[in-house]
Amino acid sequence: MSGAPHRFFVEAAALRDDHAVLAGDQARQVATVLRLAAGDRVVLVVDGTEAEVRLDAVARARVEGTVLARRPSAAEPRLRLTLALPLLRGARSEEVLEAVTQLGVSRVVPFTSERSVVRGLSEARRRRWSLVARESAETARRGRVPEVAGLVAWPELFDALDAPVFVAWEGERSRRLGPTAGYALSLVIGPEGGLTEDEVAIARRSGATTVTLGPRNLRSETAAIAAVAVAMSLAGERG
Amino acid sequence: MSGAPHRFFVEAAALRDDHAVLAGDQARQVATVLRLAAGDRVVLVVDGTEAEVRLDAVARARVEGTVLARRPSAAEPRLRLTLALPLLRGARSEEVLEAVTQLGVSRVVPFTSERSVVRGLSEARRRRWSLVARESAETARRGRVPEVAGLVAWPELFDALDAPVFVAWEGERSRRLGPTAGYALSLVIGPEGGLTEDEVAIARRSGATTVTLGPRNLRSETAAIAAVAVAMSLAGERG
Repeated sequence: MSGAPHRFFVEAAALRDDHAVLAGDQARQVATVLRLAAGDRVVLVVDGTEAEVRLDAVARARVEGTVLARRPSAAEPRLRLTLALPLLRGARSEEVLEAVTQLGVSRVVPFTSERSVVRGLSEARRRRWSLVARESAETARRGRVPEVAGLVAWPELFDALDAPVFVAWEGERSRRLGPTAGYALSLVIGPEGGLTEDEVAIARRSGATTVTLGPRNLRSETAAIAAVAVAMSLAGERG
Repeated sequence: MSGAPHRFFVEAAALRDDHAVLAGDQARQVATVLRLAAGDRVVLVVDGTEAEVRLDAVARARVEGTVLARRPSAAEPRLRLTLALPLLRGARSEEVLEAVTQLGVSRVVPFTSERSVVRGLSEARRRRWSLVARESAETARRGRVPEVAGLVAWPELFDALDAPVFVAWEGERSRRLGPTAGYALSLVIGPEGGLTEDEVAIARRSGATTVTLGPRNLRSETAAIAAVAVAMSLAGERG
């Protein structure tokens, strides 16, 4: 990464034709944290497209530049992968969010279920999750920031997921994740305490398929990262 | 896991024909932490074999039992996977070790390279790593504890690895991890600062192959967990 221009996700309004304008925190970061100057380059990213920008004027309140080139982000997967993640203790949810953002998920849906230990997601924590997703997406050189959805309870979870939906469940002995047709896929990872039989029945009635992640007992955070990595690999996403 | 008997890795000497004996910390744990009693069951694991044991006499200093059944551990992969892992900052090495133990690695070889930030592995930290590997292997219901090797420097690393050896390198654009023949495999994950061209040349001279883990920039710990998950999946290890 050394020497690569700094990347920012920006609002579409920051780029108008060949003219780029940054204000607020991003202008301050360019001017006083990164200490960039006229002539330096940055990459501004909007909705899957990267604009390479030469800075023309740098001040703490406003940075202006010229768009030299635009290109689709090479690092965005075609697969639209949604991860449904139980709330985990401590900072573990944030660690998973960081890893799966790097691996290419499009959306993370936090949920609670009957055996969840952590049951509430404060507004402050949800904002922190969005920040983690944004920073991880920048570091990973992605073209989009994954969406962090609002907290849902198990019975409503399946309305929020794109088909096909695969539920990792320790009671499933034989069916594994395999290649799927299409460009969307949802993975559901169970909480540390596992899913109840009723919850599995609800998932199946909604059309979800249970899968095993193998004979070893995985913690939820390992299961989430491993399942996303394998799904990306199966989709041929070089993930 | 609720209701499943507690599992312990034990020395081979703990099991003699149908008689099981625990002493030291393990006896104390059975008697005073788990508060088990005569008639309760535990699983004692030695080198890939599990013995189901009924406790006959429980005291703080010595626990005796009878072996009811022996079976090969169902959760041990056939693939012997070695992970070469750069020393990471803070507790990140331990987090990776925990995850990849759950996913089934056989051996972890910590190394330093030119751009390593953390360069030394204290004896206390290495002991902690062995403890993390053991506890994670117990939780994952494995039949063996992964070996944690001593720290090596890059030029000597390749002598310590089983072929084929795959080095995840950001300079590799096209070759991915794919299915391999045989039951051994080594994965090398680069440090946060990346590998030098000289280091890549050393790896290639030793017969290693560079691979890409995809177009997104992964942190070393995400790369390690994802690569192990994908390698296990490719090997058909239901991982």
